[in-house]
Amino acid sequence: MAVYTQVSDDALAAYLDEYDLGKALSFKGIAEGVENSNYYLETTKGRYILTLFEKRVNADDLPYFIGLKQHLAAGGFPCPEPIMARDGKALRTLEGRPAVIVSFLDGLSPRSPNPAQCRGIGEGLARMHVALSDYDKTRENSLGPAAWPRLWKGQSEQADALHPGLSGLIDEALADIAEAKPQSLSLPRGTIHADLFPDNAFFLGDDFSGIIDFYFACTDALAYDLAICLNAWAFEDGDGRMAIDYNFSKGAALIAGYESVRPLQPAEREALPLLARGAALRFFLTRMVDWTTTPEGALVKPKNPLEYAGRLAFHRKVHTAEGYGA
Amino acid sequence: MAVYTQVSDDALAAYLDEYDLGKALSFKGIAEGVENSNYYLETTKGRYILTLFEKRVNADDLPYFIGLKQHLAAGGFPCPEPIMARDGKALRTLEGRPAVIVSFLDGLSPRSPNPAQCRGIGEGLARMHVALSDYDKTRENSLGPAAWPRLWKGQSEQADALHPGLSGLIDEALADIAEAKPQSLSLPRGTIHADLFPDNAFFLGDDFSGIIDFYFACTDALAYDLAICLNAWAFEDGDGRMAIDYNFSKGAALIAGYESVRPLQPAEREALPLLARGAALRFFLTRMVDWTTTPEGALVKPKNPLEYAGRLAFHRKVHTAEGYGA
Repeated sequence: MAVYTQVSDDALAAYLDEYDLGKALSFKGIAEGVENSNYYLETTKGRYILTLFEKRVNADDLPYFIGLKQHLAAGGFPCPEPIMARDGKALRTLEGRPAVIVSFLDGLSPRSPNPAQCRGIGEGLARMHVALSDYDKTRENSLGPAAWPRLWKGQSEQADALHPGLSGLIDEALADIAEAKPQSLSLPRGTIHADLFPDNAFFLGDDFSGIIDFYFACTDALAYDLAICLNAWAFEDGDGRMAIDYNFSKGAALIAGYESVRPLQPAEREALPLLARGAALRFFLTRMVDWTTTPEGALVKPKNPLEYAGRLAFHRKVHTAEGYGA
Repeated sequence: MAVYTQVSDDALAAYLDEYDLGKALSFKGIAEGVENSNYYLETTKGRYILTLFEKRVNADDLPYFIGLKQHLAAGGFPCPEPIMARDGKALRTLEGRPAVIVSFLDGLSPRSPNPAQCRGIGEGLARMHVALSDYDKTRENSLGPAAWPRLWKGQSEQADALHPGLSGLIDEALADIAEAKPQSLSLPRGTIHADLFPDNAFFLGDDFSGIIDFYFACTDALAYDLAICLNAWAFEDGDGRMAIDYNFSKGAALIAGYESVRPLQPAEREALPLLARGAALRFFLTRMVDWTTTPEGALVKPKNPLEYAGRLAFHRKVHTAEGYGA
């Protein structure tokens, strides 16, 4: 939830004048995304989302993200489509910040996805991978394994305070993954979403209706995106606790949905437990950093990292894709 | 900005089943109002706002607020119209909280109202007063003069810390108003909005398009509502400082707009400076309470009360309605 940048009446009017979108009928800050300011914008031409990019997003990456959405939309994949201004540019400046208007996407983000929705997101993810297979821009995963030791530095003590012995688990997992890393380098690569949590996916009932928020997208192993989804969609609500249950029907549905569009290669199936551990570790580490650096009572309450330590502990006991129901 | 209560998928679906609104197409938390949780809700039948009432609103008052909006909407006044469920009731329960669905109102809230918009809100306010003249429910103003000494208690020291000598100004103003109070008791009374700030008003360009957020509405002197608007619309942006300028073109436009629909009676004109002082004091006091009780870094940053002390100081030098440009 976040509306950081206020937009003045004159600035909005001048901004809209650059587009062929008619006049504004409604403009409301919405609680979508935590990195940027998002506004519901309705004009005489239709409904849109206006995004102002705050400092957490690197402005140099914006052409990559916007190009990615343009590529997807051009291929008919349901995602917010960047709207071009009269000069043919989608990326502009508003209130001193980079800003973009995108099309409005119907759908609701499930709070507790059911197995049918897990199957739907699996299919949607694979469709997205296929649609992006000829997207020619690349971006390094800035939160990949190379970044993890830096994120973990100095966190041991606070981790053990959250859960006794937790720092040992993380140290071991980091060492294991460093050792196994060469295995993942030979996997099929492409453009991945890298943050496909339920709040970044839309459904109408049980039917997948689109994906939003591509601001972690990067070039990496495609199966890593599936492993992130397994972590984000196929566990029971952990309520911030370490003890957390994997839901086999949801996980199996997710993988089956993915494979119905893009079957996994044997090497990808084999790497799935490793990738799932990596994904759990990545979200544990960034949540741990947020947890220890966010001041008490801050605007956005940080999520308890323990849930992801619990997932990591689960994945360390899984050794085959079948262990996830695949 | 506030989305406090999360709504689960099942709870939303069950709630919508009670209405004849079709299926949900979109559901997004919006940054509107600070007292309640508001969601943009789009269904196959249209666009709506779903509000969950949080603890700051007294549930016993809700029939008054909802009846008021029904009365206004029935009279063709532009405001959010409560939507009745199939059983004919508009006020229901969602996630354990009172909840209501209202119609979506087009329009934008001006951040810096111009004189044309000030005239528009004057007209709109008077139209609202006229439309509510036969609304038969009443509600006491819980933030009227009787409440002010209680709000002020124990604040002197912190007020002087904000601005040297401020507590003396407030003490004097409270005493003056207590003395002058009988004058205001004989003024025409009716249903007032009591919180008609620019963020509670909508415009399409310079044209008034509606009023929202009636959760401070009560039975009081009609001209007090105009005095609140003078405070909220006709001063230059104070940026939290005590030094603040009254804008005569905006104030004059506001009063002229009001009088074009409902001319003020001589007693109301005469009482305007007193009512304006009262309004400045009321918002100073509630902001002062929020200022001193809100923890650092809290979800909603409190507004600096000094701006309203500055308005109060201005009003104390005005002795006739002409002093406001009327």
